[in-house]
Amino acid sequence: RPHLKTLRTLEAADYLLPGKNAPATVSTLAEAEAYANAGYTDLLYAVGIAPAKLARVAQLRQQGISLHILLDTPEQATAVVNFAQLHQQDFSVLIEIDSDDHRGGIKPDASQLVTIAAQLGSHFSGLMTHAGGSYGCSTPAALQTFAQQECDAIRKARQRLAEAGIDCPITSVGSTPTAHFGTDFNDISEVRAGVFTTFDLVMKNIGVCTMDDIAMSVVTTVIGYNKEKHWLLTDSGWMAVSRDRGTANQAVDYNYGQVCRLDGTVINGLTLTGTSQEHGVIELPQDYAVDDFAIGSQLRILPNHACATAAMHPVYHILKSDNSHEQWQRIIGW
Amino acid sequence: RPHLKTLRTLEAADYLLPGKNAPATVSTLAEAEAYANAGYTDLLYAVGIAPAKLARVAQLRQQGISLHILLDTPEQATAVVNFAQLHQQDFSVLIEIDSDDHRGGIKPDASQLVTIAAQLGSHFSGLMTHAGGSYGCSTPAALQTFAQQECDAIRKARQRLAEAGIDCPITSVGSTPTAHFGTDFNDISEVRAGVFTTFDLVMKNIGVCTMDDIAMSVVTTVIGYNKEKHWLLTDSGWMAVSRDRGTANQAVDYNYGQVCRLDGTVINGLTLTGTSQEHGVIELPQDYAVDDFAIGSQLRILPNHACATAAMHPVYHILKSDNSHEQWQRIIGW
Repeated sequence: RPHLKTLRTLEAADYLLPGKNAPATVSTLAEAEAYANAGYTDLLYAVGIAPAKLARVAQLRQQGISLHILLDTPEQATAVVNFAQLHQQDFSVLIEIDSDDHRGGIKPDASQLVTIAAQLGSHFSGLMTHAGGSYGCSTPAALQTFAQQECDAIRKARQRLAEAGIDCPITSVGSTPTAHFGTDFNDISEVRAGVFTTFDLVMKNIGVCTMDDIAMSVVTTVIGYNKEKHWLLTDSGWMAVSRDRGTANQAVDYNYGQVCRLDGTVINGLTLTGTSQEHGVIELPQDYAVDDFAIGSQLRILPNHACATAAMHPVYHILKSDNSHEQWQRIIGW
Repeated sequence: RPHLKTLRTLEAADYLLPGKNAPATVSTLAEAEAYANAGYTDLLYAVGIAPAKLARVAQLRQQGISLHILLDTPEQATAVVNFAQLHQQDFSVLIEIDSDDHRGGIKPDASQLVTIAAQLGSHFSGLMTHAGGSYGCSTPAALQTFAQQECDAIRKARQRLAEAGIDCPITSVGSTPTAHFGTDFNDISEVRAGVFTTFDLVMKNIGVCTMDDIAMSVVTTVIGYNKEKHWLLTDSGWMAVSRDRGTANQAVDYNYGQVCRLDGTVINGLTLTGTSQEHGVIELPQDYAVDDFAIGSQLRILPNHACATAAMHPVYHILKSDNSHEQWQRIIGW
């Protein structure tokens, strides 16, 4: 069940999914509505449901979309059950399991797990976990551990539900790092990965991809220099690359992004060192001269975090392998 | 010459400018084109010009727009002069002066100043500086010094040009902090400030505004909690508030934003402590209980940096003083 949140385009879904009935994951209801309108029928909205959003969920389900929602509190379950009863609506709900103490979810051994599933009754469809903590890893062994931990948390929770007589059709794990390093997903029904669609410098540092695998970049133009400081100034501020500093605490810090030639060749040691709204600063290492980069020349910046950089742009310029161009519109909003 | 880059809406310009011929500042050519199409006639594009953008500038000038451009290198000046000659086009160019060693511009005593102005000839219109370094201040005295420094740098540069027989009709200084703390702009033709339109937590920390002056917020909904960790989970990730951590190195760190009640009342000590793409985490101080904030309840987040938070949203919901609502569309792209 690939996560579509990185690119958020209808066109990317065509490449990622074998067909319109294939399962996918979205991060907003705006995405769910856009993909549903484009004919996709099996979507997981993987953010804890707010009661006020149930009407939109119900509307999509009435259109025949298998839209699954997520929750991890008895209060959310009550809201779902009440809405379902009031509006004669069935839902499909996953309970979020906390497998790594990272963000949301309940522990697989929490007493609430069985309570919430029982409360949901026929609306209960399964379990989901996301090991966001895997982003802090940098060795294959550590990533394998996180992947194992995700599956084990789900297995434990499923076992407890089985003991309570509750069936669990969907078991969903994953993040890009764990999806790529998991070794045994045999008894898990689906894996959700997202940023693998383009990869980025964070994933390169984690060891999930190489620099050559990074398929997203921001084209920038040299608009000035400061010879005293050995700086280039560019027109790629954080409005173009985002404020994300995902590599700041990793082994290699790429600042606001790796600088490449326009043809994509990585320029070793050159990063976008600073950004303001529409200005970028590239502090040149001593082995480059300011004059190596003419005013008006174009460079490419590889992103720290593809999801964050993509979010700054309403349109993608797609370079296809036959050298043709396409523009893909991004789905915007919530 | 107010800077329109924070809100980037046609509607805000109506409030900020006395009329369509009043001078304004933009940060992209997309803005210049949108404001020009809406009838505004005097715009400064305050980012160093790239030669490839001159054709779009020329087009706006041919429409009768006083679009001023900015540069700080002889290479850019050559590009302007060559384009002007080739296309029989006149430009209006400001030279950027570096008044605080912060980003771009040339020093007021650099020999290049007179060279570039002479090179530009009739296309030369004036001088501009931006004390971005003022964002690092926190006392009125320090802000006054930066404001003074901006004006003095411009005065010195203008004096040198006068000695070379070059007239300097436009002298442009400013940033929100220096505009608010400058005391003598008598012989300066214009001040550019931008973020004062809504203010934000960075400006509050600098001492330019109070918390009550902050007029932009992101509405968020509580979607879960973690009782063990004393956390609320919300649906406001960095997709809603941005990755900007502008207060991180200031006296008061608001993390990803100050949390308020939906009615705007500040909840002391409550900040958005963490964000992922669509999830926010509010670590509650000990004097609040998780149960104080019901699942589904709404809160408001005040932004660290209004420009960055605004950039994440294509539409503003405007609450007017008569309690009516408006939606303002944001100008997107470059």
